Amino acid sequence: MAIVVQKYGGTSVGSLEKIRNAAERVIQSHEKGNQVVVVLSAMAGQTDDLIRMAHEITPEPEPRELDVLMSTGEQVSVALFAMTVQSMGYEAHSLLGFQVGILTDRLYGKARIHEVNPTRLLNGLDKGRILVVAGFQGTDESGNITTLGRGGSDTTAVAIAAALGADVCEIFTDVDGVYTTDPNICPKAKKLEFISYDEMLEMSSMGAKVLEIRSVEFAKKFNVPIHVRSTFNKERGTMVVAETKDMEKVVVSGVAYNKNEARVTITKVPDRPGVAGQIFEPVFRAGIIVDMIVQNTSDEGRTDLTFTVPKTDFLKTMKLVSDVAQKIGAEKVLGDEDIAKVSIVGVGMRSHAGVAQKMFKALANETINIMMISTSEIKVSVVIEEKYTELAVRVLHEVFGLEDGEQGES
Amino acid sequence: MAIVVQKYGGTSVGSLEKIRNAAERVIQSHEKGNQVVVVLSAMAGQTDDLIRMAHEITPEPEPRELDVLMSTGEQVSVALFAMTVQSMGYEAHSLLGFQVGILTDRLYGKARIHEVNPTRLLNGLDKGRILVVAGFQGTDESGNITTLGRGGSDTTAVAIAAALGADVCEIFTDVDGVYTTDPNICPKAKKLEFISYDEMLEMSSMGAKVLEIRSVEFAKKFNVPIHVRSTFNKERGTMVVAETKDMEKVVVSGVAYNKNEARVTITKVPDRPGVAGQIFEPVFRAGIIVDMIVQNTSDEGRTDLTFTVPKTDFLKTMKLVSDVAQKIGAEKVLGDEDIAKVSIVGVGMRSHAGVAQKMFKALANETINIMMISTSEIKVSVVIEEKYTELAVRVLHEVFGLEDGEQGES
Repeated sequence: MAIVVQKYGGTSVGSLEKIRNAAERVIQSHEKGNQVVVVLSAMAGQTDDLIRMAHEITPEPEPRELDVLMSTGEQVSVALFAMTVQSMGYEAHSLLGFQVGILTDRLYGKARIHEVNPTRLLNGLDKGRILVVAGFQGTDESGNITTLGRGGSDTTAVAIAAALGADVCEIFTDVDGVYTTDPNICPKAKKLEFISYDEMLEMSSMGAKVLEIRSVEFAKKFNVPIHVRSTFNKERGTMVVAETKDMEKVVVSGVAYNKNEARVTITKVPDRPGVAGQIFEPVFRAGIIVDMIVQNTSDEGRTDLTFTVPKTDFLKTMKLVSDVAQKIGAEKVLGDEDIAKVSIVGVGMRSHAGVAQKMFKALANETINIMMISTSEIKVSVVIEEKYTELAVRVLHEVFGLEDGEQGES
Repeated sequence: MAIVVQKYGGTSVGSLEKIRNAAERVIQSHEKGNQVVVVLSAMAGQTDDLIRMAHEITPEPEPRELDVLMSTGEQVSVALFAMTVQSMGYEAHSLLGFQVGILTDRLYGKARIHEVNPTRLLNGLDKGRILVVAGFQGTDESGNITTLGRGGSDTTAVAIAAALGADVCEIFTDVDGVYTTDPNICPKAKKLEFISYDEMLEMSSMGAKVLEIRSVEFAKKFNVPIHVRSTFNKERGTMVVAETKDMEKVVVSGVAYNKNEARVTITKVPDRPGVAGQIFEPVFRAGIIVDMIVQNTSDEGRTDLTFTVPKTDFLKTMKLVSDVAQKIGAEKVLGDEDIAKVSIVGVGMRSHAGVAQKMFKALANETINIMMISTSEIKVSVVIEEKYTELAVRVLHEVFGLEDGEQGES
């Protein structure tokens, strides 16, 4: 008997009708002899309503209370879902974070799961029940309610799958699976049958919104196979799994992009030990996540330092950095919000030379200027002017042979 | 330093504006040096919305899941309330049933509180926090969420007051206090300064909706003084307290009525041992609460048996009783929904003779026919035709000297 964890997002449980459809899928899997645990998000729209109410009270609601408020969204979904399954003649129990024993740290609003206690889940499954677990929520060791932040239900699902040693964690969503790139930009984008955890991590961090990045990290750590598939059809989606030899045959698996970053450059920074630390210290302290950092070789004891931050933190960063630039005697601080990051991702890169070179050439052919470059073992990212994003994505998608109908370069 | 429990009902927290007002009252009490625990109901209307959703899924939602759904209502109130208090510059924490340790039995939808663990509350109060507790909810010993049924937040408040040894449990509501009778019927009704637990129990069971009956039982058992008062003004309300010698000076404290019952009569019941048991057995088994029972003296081996049940159970009861009447060889079953029960209540009755007689005479003067009579130590109830309810209440209120401006009979 296989253990299957199925996760349904907010749009998949956005109405009683949709809940019924999802419940039917759950029951089908149960009828096939699987032991099924369902993980749910809040009904689409509900979370926004709750946040709006909180913000009517105060612009900065206390995080502890915000989590108490937000977690009601998932509580409503699981109760309605369990009722629906029961009304169809099957035994079901809803379970909240504190009931499952999802233990987290106390970082309200973005807590991290430390542990999932499988005992109650296993007992319930052994009684033949379909278990319906509230995603996105847990409790800290003092029993305070915490939430996991955006996309947290994915993480709940994978963590539960890991704790149960589930055979698969199915993530039902409004897309068919993971594509070689955004089909809205590139109509020839192709659904991937398999993708490795590492590739998925790079794609997720680049804004491919199919899976929350922490859920992929979790899945990788505990080797949980994830099946990303559509709520609205029965097609196979994409399996996110550990890397296999086969995957290396394809040099590039996908092209990702991210328009949510801004660039900050400090010119003529005195080139002495400790200066980078001085610059970034106030930025890190403000909790701002710095993504790419590029520093050129020093020229006459001075160097230019460039980095990217989320657009939402751009103004704050500019202020913090301007202060420190003055202090250390740099020339000036330049900012640019009209940038985009475009990346090619693929585990095959490890064993293939010249991939970056091919990327640069393809962009040059379109006279797209590259502002920053950063590479990892399985990824090459460039920062370009935002207006060229779509063009760059399409060109790279074609150059690396990712279009539907092709086999990819091997 | 006094410990004060304040309970606000659904209309008192029905909007963010009202929550703000209630929060100000709480802070005032805190500023006076009290340690304050607040108990809240769901925002008015929310509970109905949740029930409606559940009933769209199935006419009979599973009680366990209904409780999971319903308990979100109070969770929303306490989170918003705590945020509001915090935004006013005070420290506050919301606490849910499972966090407080409100242990109940597993009667979903009408659970009874077994125990309240005061540890977490006392810790929070010692840290100077205002604690905001979700009413109406608890967990059973397996950690399943339960709700206490209609008016359950009153019971939560009193149970918490008992566990903490609070100095007073203030029940804030939309009326000024407990009145000698319903002011809508009798404009001269007078607010009582004090009322004993037993009198309050009789008044509550008669449909005076100021306090939930179980909360009064709880208060009596643990001797918790209850102060019933208005959310919307600062007047003293009514203290519900243990009986004092003074209270006996007043013969009748109040006149109550109840239009929610129906009468069932079985005629010519063979008068033999065990027959009453046979009649009521199916009724009790169906969970129907029988209130008054009257059996006349036997005439030629046959007797008439009359009793009252809630109107909502009337049709079911008629069916059950008709079946059994045939079996035992009774004549026929008569039903009447157009009845009302009117009662006079007062601990002073114990030491005063002729109270019932005075009541019957007053009703007879208005040619109101009495169908059933039932008495207790501190109450006389009669069943009359429903259409005479208001008249009967006004007449009795006047005859027993309860009108505003009078001192009452002594």
